[in-house]
Amino acid sequence: MRMSRLFGKTLRQTPAEAETPSHQLLLRAGLVHQVAAGVYAFLPLAWRTLQNIERIIREEMDAAGGQELMMPAIHPIELWQASGRDQAMKDILFRFSDKRDREFVLGPTHEEVIVELFKRNIRSYRDLPLLVYQIQQKFRDEPRPRGGLIRLRQFTMKDLYSFDTDFEGLDLSYRKMYEAYIRIFDRCGVPTIPVLADSGAMGGRDTHEFIYLTEYGEDTCLLCPKCGYAANADVAAFVKEPAHTAEEPKPIEEIPTPGLYTIQALADHLGIPTSKTCKAVFYSADGEPVFVAIRGDMDVNETKLSRALRTVDLHYMSEDEVVAAGFVPGSAGAVGLKGVRIIADDLLPREVNLVAGANKPDAHLLNVNYGRDWQADTLTDIALAVEGSLCSATSDKQGECRTPMDVRRGIEMGQVFKLGTFYAEKLGATYLDAEGKQRPAVMGSYGIGTERLLAAVVEANHDERGIIWPAEITPFQVHLVALQPERDEVGTAAEKLYGRLQTDGFAVLYDDRDETPGVKFNDADLLGMPLRVTVSPRTLEKGSLELKRRSEAESELVPLDEGPSRIKASLAS
Amino acid sequence: MRMSRLFGKTLRQTPAEAETPSHQLLLRAGLVHQVAAGVYAFLPLAWRTLQNIERIIREEMDAAGGQELMMPAIHPIELWQASGRDQAMKDILFRFSDKRDREFVLGPTHEEVIVELFKRNIRSYRDLPLLVYQIQQKFRDEPRPRGGLIRLRQFTMKDLYSFDTDFEGLDLSYRKMYEAYIRIFDRCGVPTIPVLADSGAMGGRDTHEFIYLTEYGEDTCLLCPKCGYAANADVAAFVKEPAHTAEEPKPIEEIPTPGLYTIQALADHLGIPTSKTCKAVFYSADGEPVFVAIRGDMDVNETKLSRALRTVDLHYMSEDEVVAAGFVPGSAGAVGLKGVRIIADDLLPREVNLVAGANKPDAHLLNVNYGRDWQADTLTDIALAVEGSLCSATSDKQGECRTPMDVRRGIEMGQVFKLGTFYAEKLGATYLDAEGKQRPAVMGSYGIGTERLLAAVVEANHDERGIIWPAEITPFQVHLVALQPERDEVGTAAEKLYGRLQTDGFAVLYDDRDETPGVKFNDADLLGMPLRVTVSPRTLEKGSLELKRRSEAESELVPLDEGPSRIKASLAS
Repeated sequence: MRMSRLFGKTLRQTPAEAETPSHQLLLRAGLVHQVAAGVYAFLPLAWRTLQNIERIIREEMDAAGGQELMMPAIHPIELWQASGRDQAMKDILFRFSDKRDREFVLGPTHEEVIVELFKRNIRSYRDLPLLVYQIQQKFRDEPRPRGGLIRLRQFTMKDLYSFDTDFEGLDLSYRKMYEAYIRIFDRCGVPTIPVLADSGAMGGRDTHEFIYLTEYGEDTCLLCPKCGYAANADVAAFVKEPAHTAEEPKPIEEIPTPGLYTIQALADHLGIPTSKTCKAVFYSADGEPVFVAIRGDMDVNETKLSRALRTVDLHYMSEDEVVAAGFVPGSAGAVGLKGVRIIADDLLPREVNLVAGANKPDAHLLNVNYGRDWQADTLTDIALAVEGSLCSATSDKQGECRTPMDVRRGIEMGQVFKLGTFYAEKLGATYLDAEGKQRPAVMGSYGIGTERLLAAVVEANHDERGIIWPAEITPFQVHLVALQPERDEVGTAAEKLYGRLQTDGFAVLYDDRDETPGVKFNDADLLGMPLRVTVSPRTLEKGSLELKRRSEAESELVPLDEGPSRIKASLAS
Repeated sequence: MRMSRLFGKTLRQTPAEAETPSHQLLLRAGLVHQVAAGVYAFLPLAWRTLQNIERIIREEMDAAGGQELMMPAIHPIELWQASGRDQAMKDILFRFSDKRDREFVLGPTHEEVIVELFKRNIRSYRDLPLLVYQIQQKFRDEPRPRGGLIRLRQFTMKDLYSFDTDFEGLDLSYRKMYEAYIRIFDRCGVPTIPVLADSGAMGGRDTHEFIYLTEYGEDTCLLCPKCGYAANADVAAFVKEPAHTAEEPKPIEEIPTPGLYTIQALADHLGIPTSKTCKAVFYSADGEPVFVAIRGDMDVNETKLSRALRTVDLHYMSEDEVVAAGFVPGSAGAVGLKGVRIIADDLLPREVNLVAGANKPDAHLLNVNYGRDWQADTLTDIALAVEGSLCSATSDKQGECRTPMDVRRGIEMGQVFKLGTFYAEKLGATYLDAEGKQRPAVMGSYGIGTERLLAAVVEANHDERGIIWPAEITPFQVHLVALQPERDEVGTAAEKLYGRLQTDGFAVLYDDRDETPGVKFNDADLLGMPLRVTVSPRTLEKGSLELKRRSEAESELVPLDEGPSRIKASLAS
């Protein structure tokens, strides 16, 4: 490709809209263009890279036994009503109607449709296991599209679906995908770690996210530096222990606390740590008020809470809702509370003599004890792990790991789900077993977003001058720079080399433009092809070419006639 | 691929929903599945074929200098309002809103978006010509999706856009695409002819459709068997001549015609041919009534009429509308008609003494003559060519061709448009010329629908037993059939050959199923791979394999050890 003809221009300035280094570089390199919030066009260099990413994904999915097919983006609403996800995913569904008022969804994922295909084509256990996938457009009305390509409203996803006869089969399919994902991210040059995650609206059991750790990520993970436990903060378990040494329960006592509406103010006033208090938090769960109790120094993990409540729509109550529900903001407490569901963190029964709201204005209670003074309808782990929370992973030999964990941010590159029989039962995906009995198929679902992966590739492979493309996904292998190409000897040598390298099967970007050496070298660094080859009056005087790897500072001169073989060797290394 | 694992099952029965041979075969072969009206999923065999079609298109677009990129399906409505096509294409636009009530369109085509990209990336005449394309999903709310894959509501289109500095450049880009299209359809095994067509809502000047002639097509073409003139009936020109020998104009005369409401009834009553009458037809053009006059034996060509009126929304008036507009149904006529726009076919001034409506109930006029008795506001060609219409194509040497033309039906495989400066001017796509002056870019647009092409491939390449895939797009090259694969010698020989052929780089579908020879051979014929290779106890007794080309009736036995080389030779031939 001649740069004089390439569609897409590099920019000197970093556009103000860019939020992260990858976003800045993708814009500066002229690779992408935003058409609407979270909706992008991909110019030729970006598209070549995305096609390389797709090729790698395809190779790994095929090697794992996947069969590629293609499902549509338009789904009849009835399919989503049947699974119940017209409600569970309603916040992000794009819905629309045709001219005959039939309603449709733009597919945010394809479990419903693949189950339809399964029902038409699979009869018997002999047809299983089945692994089918597509690389296709998804549509999600994300409320806050951000970070360039990190959170898009239209994006490309490889989604593979596995169907097995039983859970052992699912475990095997899941393992295959897990390993294929490790290889894919590795080949794309993005270091990732698998972390335990939440299955959210997907339903099902086990799930892992593959995370690229970066401060620009929007996911938060807990990592154990000793045993390797890794989990999304949404689901991270940790060792919970009482904050204080054991003491005898004391009699409950009401005290006036006018003006003390926060845990911190209350603790400061009483001269106690916040861990000596019980905090009340109010949620609306599918429209019903819920009273949530947790130790004063801890925060509620909404994912754990949502799971414990089996709720579809969970949100923090507004002050109006709190009052309307009959709670006393600032001094609400569980003691004596009637007619409302109470859920408490499971650490509370092990804490003694806590301070809690008195459930009347401007008053709190001292020495509140779980069991004696109040009880929850649900008692379970709803606490958020934080930096330094102790690792609760266990091994047969040593019990709990108990190492303080690190909190790190990261980008989710892909996710694998053990869906189990949820969709098969809801939507009727069954097969006949060896005894001729109808049984539900056991499903898994496995996704990778290719544009997000592209962003992570750039995030993980750049320096202050620009992108450094990994070998397998680089849009071009060689960036051929001709300095003063209008001079006959340069033009001739560069054109000849350009032709030769292409004949040899290399993908070459040829800077044939009428620009200064500074502009050309800056663009070569910004665009990031692995090998820069320069032909100039100076190199030709010495009968040579200059080779410089993008990832290295040094360049070398090689004899003209050794050019092609040295270039080949450099790219192979 | 082992057939025992292939996702997609052949059917014994032809599904009732299938309208055309290609649709029947695609369903019977288990290649496609309808998810909603005009919305399909493509199973692995179909998807492999579509990918091959995409590869061919890509190769030809790249060879013609096209650069591939990718634009989104979600378009802000503002872009479509700017071009005016939110109205011009409103009947087929899918519109929807996000959660913040911003309105979007699902792109039915991408002129608006590519112009946005052009504006960001092109500055100067030095950047032109530019040819950019994508292979991407399109969405059109077709009122009557039909014929399986012929008219879809979601479909894949290769759309290339050309930008040139002037119309000579556009002619060159257009010619490149025209020739590339010929090669693409040829490589896909579909004979096509380019025909002159209507540019419809695309705007612009010249346009050709590439038509595959078949009785199952929904387009109608006029073809001259002598000179090769070919045009869609929408735009077909023809030689128009007076139906009768010249005679002197006679005085106008009113006659009573009670109960004679049709041209045929009138002509029968008067004992004259319909060509001796003048027919009145009523249209609503952008809400305004229009009186259309044409010779009684001819039909109005609505595309020509729409162009002549420069109207966006043209429809035949209902009886209520006719009456409301003040026309006299059954005996309306142009003589004395006031206050309404009259458009007449340009043949009428050359006809003498016609019978026309008297513009009052139950009366007609004899000897009506254009010019003397009435005049049109617009006089132009608005007549539909029919079987036997005379070819009006001219050559320098011989004047009009005048050969009677044939009417044929066909499927439109692709269309190329000279858009000119319409979009550039509407949307501001300009470049600086060599003198530094802003000028509008001259655009072309060139589309191919891949699923429709797939349907045409099957329509053009099948027999009563099934599909016969052309070599370049076949999902697999070899259909390896093992008869009684449970017998050791068969299983071993077939597995070995399967492995060997794959190692040699052939795409092999291997029927390893526990089925009868009849079922296997029927499926091989139905699925249509170019070469069937059979391993059975009988062939092995003779130390051989059976090779049969799908397109030929005869099979041949070849020695086992020559198998791979003979297969290779057969596929190469």
